[in-house]
Amino acid sequence: MLLCDIGNSTYHFLDKDKEYKKDVKLFDPSTMKEKIFYICVNPHVKEVLKQLKNWIDLSLYADMRNYYETMGVDRIMACEAIKNGVIVDAGSAVTVDIVKEGRFEGGFIYLGVRAMSEAYKNISSALEYSFNFEVDLDKMPKNSRDAISYGYLKLLQSEVKSYNMDIYLTGGDASSFAKIFPYSHVDEMLIFKGMKNIMKKANLC
Amino acid sequence: MLLCDIGNSTYHFLDKDKEYKKDVKLFDPSTMKEKIFYICVNPHVKEVLKQLKNWIDLSLYADMRNYYETMGVDRIMACEAIKNGVIVDAGSAVTVDIVKEGRFEGGFIYLGVRAMSEAYKNISSALEYSFNFEVDLDKMPKNSRDAISYGYLKLLQSEVKSYNMDIYLTGGDASSFAKIFPYSHVDEMLIFKGMKNIMKKANLC
Repeated sequence: MLLCDIGNSTYHFLDKDKEYKKDVKLFDPSTMKEKIFYICVNPHVKEVLKQLKNWIDLSLYADMRNYYETMGVDRIMACEAIKNGVIVDAGSAVTVDIVKEGRFEGGFIYLGVRAMSEAYKNISSALEYSFNFEVDLDKMPKNSRDAISYGYLKLLQSEVKSYNMDIYLTGGDASSFAKIFPYSHVDEMLIFKGMKNIMKKANLC
Repeated sequence: MLLCDIGNSTYHFLDKDKEYKKDVKLFDPSTMKEKIFYICVNPHVKEVLKQLKNWIDLSLYADMRNYYETMGVDRIMACEAIKNGVIVDAGSAVTVDIVKEGRFEGGFIYLGVRAMSEAYKNISSALEYSFNFEVDLDKMPKNSRDAISYGYLKLLQSEVKSYNMDIYLTGGDASSFAKIFPYSHVDEMLIFKGMKNIMKKANLC
């Protein structure tokens, strides 16, 4: 069984236990002949895949009554992976979603590390720092680097902690965020787990 | 007495009770012949003003032992304006500073409305929304516009409220932020107040 999670820049494949990535710009999906169950947030790739019969769009099998129309299908799949908890998916955006008893209870969207860092830099070169994930978030900062790190990280940490739920970290920056959520579950396979759960519900496997 | 607070885009003057603004790109400070007490965060304008004897840099009179070296002089002046409280200065960046018994206790830097909005848009056109300052921040969002509004506003609101101090709002977006800090003091003259306090301490007026 071959699964694929397609973002704005990569095809992320899971072939049984083996995972690998392909660049969206370089990879031609018509070269694949086997059956592939996928989700896709990339509008261009979506159009291409519609023409390919062996690529099966799992978003069509999700019960959308639990979600909202414009919600990213990657967020939906992550929610399908857990029964109770808060999911922090740290990619180009950071999405934070709450699931209670298997039901999506709402969520919000924050900026990813790179987007936030670029945005500070664009305001003023005086704010051009890399984030300090080791900053002491229990103390008000008294230097510029910590002042922007605190602005980005403490606010997110407090909000996520305030739910008093298990925290599931996924996405490309999950390991950085694990520093501010030390008791979280880091699980880079979360979206694939959700995809498998959807397939089971729909008797696709 | 003429005061001037110079940012990256404007000269903000206070002439007794009358305030007015001039565009940094269009205004020539050498046309002014009277004495002007100013602060300036714009590096280019700073260089120009150094040559003009009637422009007096108030940053030289602040007691820097209470602050840190790279801290913006506008933040310092706002801190000099109050005795106890948290200052939220909502401009191109949002700076949040704590003052206890007249002493700066630390602060952080967040993104301003425009910078944050641009940054969401740059991640994906699916995140191109204006912020909803009326969003119910006590409920987890279930639509895209509220999801980004919550991500920006709730996190800041919770952090600022957590100090349990009087909130002083200033800066160009103060009136928008007043919607999420309903019991705050909106004071667009805060920086000028701090400048006057510095002048009193230094016997400049």
